[in-house]
Amino acid sequence: MARRRSIISIPSLGSLDKTAGRVGQQLTQALREAISKGELKPGERLPSTRALATSLHLARGTVIEAFHQLHAEGYLEARSRGGTVVTNVNSASGFVSQTHSPKESALIGPGLPANVARLAEVARTLRPQRAAPFAIAHPAGGVAPDDKWRRLGNRVRAMRVAAPSGYIDSRGLFELRVAIADYVRKARGVKCDPGQVVITAGIQQGLFLAATVLLSPGDAIWAEDPAYPGIVAVLGNFDVSTHRIPVDAQGIDVQEGLNRCPGARVAFVTPSHQYPLGMPMSMARRTALLLWARQNNAWIVEDDYDSELRYAGHPFPSLQGLDSARVIYIGTMSKVLVSSMRLGYAIVPPSLVDAFAGARALIDRHSPAADQYVLAQYMREGHFEAHIRRIRSAYAERRTVLIAAIEEELPAWATLQSSDQGMHLVLCLPSGLDDVELADRAEKIGLVVRPISPMYHDTPPRCGLMLGFGGFSVPELRGAVIRLRTLLDASVGAVKGSKLSKPPGLEAVS
Amino acid sequence: MARRRSIISIPSLGSLDKTAGRVGQQLTQALREAISKGELKPGERLPSTRALATSLHLARGTVIEAFHQLHAEGYLEARSRGGTVVTNVNSASGFVSQTHSPKESALIGPGLPANVARLAEVARTLRPQRAAPFAIAHPAGGVAPDDKWRRLGNRVRAMRVAAPSGYIDSRGLFELRVAIADYVRKARGVKCDPGQVVITAGIQQGLFLAATVLLSPGDAIWAEDPAYPGIVAVLGNFDVSTHRIPVDAQGIDVQEGLNRCPGARVAFVTPSHQYPLGMPMSMARRTALLLWARQNNAWIVEDDYDSELRYAGHPFPSLQGLDSARVIYIGTMSKVLVSSMRLGYAIVPPSLVDAFAGARALIDRHSPAADQYVLAQYMREGHFEAHIRRIRSAYAERRTVLIAAIEEELPAWATLQSSDQGMHLVLCLPSGLDDVELADRAEKIGLVVRPISPMYHDTPPRCGLMLGFGGFSVPELRGAVIRLRTLLDASVGAVKGSKLSKPPGLEAVS
Repeated sequence: MARRRSIISIPSLGSLDKTAGRVGQQLTQALREAISKGELKPGERLPSTRALATSLHLARGTVIEAFHQLHAEGYLEARSRGGTVVTNVNSASGFVSQTHSPKESALIGPGLPANVARLAEVARTLRPQRAAPFAIAHPAGGVAPDDKWRRLGNRVRAMRVAAPSGYIDSRGLFELRVAIADYVRKARGVKCDPGQVVITAGIQQGLFLAATVLLSPGDAIWAEDPAYPGIVAVLGNFDVSTHRIPVDAQGIDVQEGLNRCPGARVAFVTPSHQYPLGMPMSMARRTALLLWARQNNAWIVEDDYDSELRYAGHPFPSLQGLDSARVIYIGTMSKVLVSSMRLGYAIVPPSLVDAFAGARALIDRHSPAADQYVLAQYMREGHFEAHIRRIRSAYAERRTVLIAAIEEELPAWATLQSSDQGMHLVLCLPSGLDDVELADRAEKIGLVVRPISPMYHDTPPRCGLMLGFGGFSVPELRGAVIRLRTLLDASVGAVKGSKLSKPPGLEAVS
Repeated sequence: MARRRSIISIPSLGSLDKTAGRVGQQLTQALREAISKGELKPGERLPSTRALATSLHLARGTVIEAFHQLHAEGYLEARSRGGTVVTNVNSASGFVSQTHSPKESALIGPGLPANVARLAEVARTLRPQRAAPFAIAHPAGGVAPDDKWRRLGNRVRAMRVAAPSGYIDSRGLFELRVAIADYVRKARGVKCDPGQVVITAGIQQGLFLAATVLLSPGDAIWAEDPAYPGIVAVLGNFDVSTHRIPVDAQGIDVQEGLNRCPGARVAFVTPSHQYPLGMPMSMARRTALLLWARQNNAWIVEDDYDSELRYAGHPFPSLQGLDSARVIYIGTMSKVLVSSMRLGYAIVPPSLVDAFAGARALIDRHSPAADQYVLAQYMREGHFEAHIRRIRSAYAERRTVLIAAIEEELPAWATLQSSDQGMHLVLCLPSGLDDVELADRAEKIGLVVRPISPMYHDTPPRCGLMLGFGGFSVPELRGAVIRLRTLLDASVGAVKGSKLSKPPGLEAVS
């Protein structure tokens, strides 16, 4: 085990300036830097909060607060007997504690269950990103529903009814189901009554519930290629045969699905904003997909994770709105409110509502009651739609700035995938580059980018980086593009063979 | 479909007295009574809130509020086009919407998934009970953590860190894991460091996560007979072979388990307070169970759902404290705070932590962040332990009153199962009675009792009723025992054959 580090050997701590104020934030930042620069190494033990406070002449509470913040961000983690060590944030294994990587786990003790390695890998794949540009799934701090949401919450929670002592309906709070039915009818043309709404803990649980209800052992399934790692993880948990169907500029290639496996039982798709690439599914493909589902008594799970955030033109109708009998529509509040709240919804054909309620009861009974009351009131009083208008306008500005900065700063061989909504863009790179290695190197200079090539399975992978822009200010985004340029410039040397050129078959951003 | 009821034909509404104040509560109560008395029948449509308000000369908001309350309690449910109908609260199918009972579901539309009927049945089995005596899983309204919890919550939520915009660690908030590790070490002798704590959404999710990690297709499993319906539902979701092992006065009969299936991979048990019967597992049985697990490389899932609420003597050590290597310990805040908050925890051997984190990420990412911050602070400031002392004393009084009232009022052939902790007692009845039918009839006079015979599978079922006492005041409990006597007296006539006598093989309550 790494010995506890003496304080003197952490140079970044020398930057603390007590006369400048906000010394707690300075300390947090200095420790982040020490970790990024490698002054503090993965697995290494930190000084105790007491020792650090004494040597830096700070209140111990300030040090504890900084440690808490870095724990929350995933930089630090706990060890036995109160010790604190640095998490390995610079590698893919960062989320998983160092002493028990799956390879080791498989060797520890007899009789370890067969699922351990697979599930530990899921933990790694789905680990949260740090809140640095260009993390995705981070709605904007500055435009998050802060004071209004909080005051409303305090008021609602003061009513005893909002914290019932017992369980509530697994389908969710009735008032919230009414508000969501109204909202998706208006905003997405979804056809439903409140009885068809099942409150979920977000998209991930929506996918898990849909799989629990719809899948039987041995079923054939369609998923997109590339696909959201969350659905890949879910399908890996069920005994089904998954066919990864290629995605082109119009979305999932339905004809290719028919060629490969016409008898699939369920198709999991992201028609509004393909994950990760970002293009919408064309109307022709929507029609073809629904025709397939009707003719084969198959189901479609429509993952509409960020359709609120649309910047141009009119959206295609939702698949559910086109044929509500064969579609499970799932949405989330994560992208418009905050992800850490864990509230979403599934709109379910009437014949499946009871089964969804049962699956939810089985897994965790129901979502916490209090936030459901708060959200229902927030929607009923009109704050929700006002909030969406506000963030859409803020995100539109950030998106425009990001596109302009990329066009101005980045080499011509790095192009943006066409997309008209959402909170991220995909920067397509020539196939000679290694996007996974680029992402690792980006992490070291404080950039969080998600490589797209690991999201492909059967199709030859494209090389690219997902750039989330929702959670970051215009100056942060500009600065991050400059750092990204440095990284790309340095990477050119690493490419062997022919001159870099624009990646093939991609359209410029609108 | 039932026609909309004209207001004049609901006699209970005649009881409203506007001069007496609290007219909204009066209206809610009058509608409850109208439903209980059958003036409003299951599936029947209510008048619109507008029409009802006009005819009763009430503000429409008052009527809407009353409808919301009855929705929350499960008396009413929504239909398309804004209509509201009466739920069938008097029968086991109450929770499930009337238009889509599983039998009908199986007939609606082609290609319904194979799991629909099973999961709809789970929804029925796990549907929440109404908040009336003797509902279980209802911590006391009067002693719930109200103002202190709420004010602390408002303060914590005002800090931006408590509502991070992105995801947090699937294992839960580090501060909360530290607080829970401290607590279970002190309170239950559980051996763990904070790294072994995984925050869950309560016992039900703890069981589901344990099953997801530990079970492989074809595994043999031990579960108790009788058992908690929540674990039976979970095991029914996995492709395993469940052996239901009988429970006697010492808890699960380990020798019988060895006779039937020594090679089981996992045993799911409730050693502190067997669910439903209530006795603790003896020390000899604990030793035998742990020996079996060690010798067979098997796992034990220790469901410790209400061990905080102990009224006499010293508890046996937890199984986890006796052998932390082979035990997954799960606990919950539902019984000491409120069930609707959905927070609990699993204490997991180090080699399984990453797999639990992955299972949680797969199912729903993590528990909402804000309440984790609030609970961590509540525990850190000592409020949690003070709260437990307060409710333990309140529940001890309620329990004493309930035991005295039962001994005084009920026939000698109705006896209490011995038990020294928890929030419910089991009233054992002669086998000639039908506890399911008794529970149905109890519902009609406003009593909520859970029959135990459906919780048996292989063992000949005992007949009895679970009586929860946590959520109800001393006068409520006394009044409810009187009503229960009426019911039991009436039931005597229904028993054919020999004279009723005490049920065999049970011990008196201590």
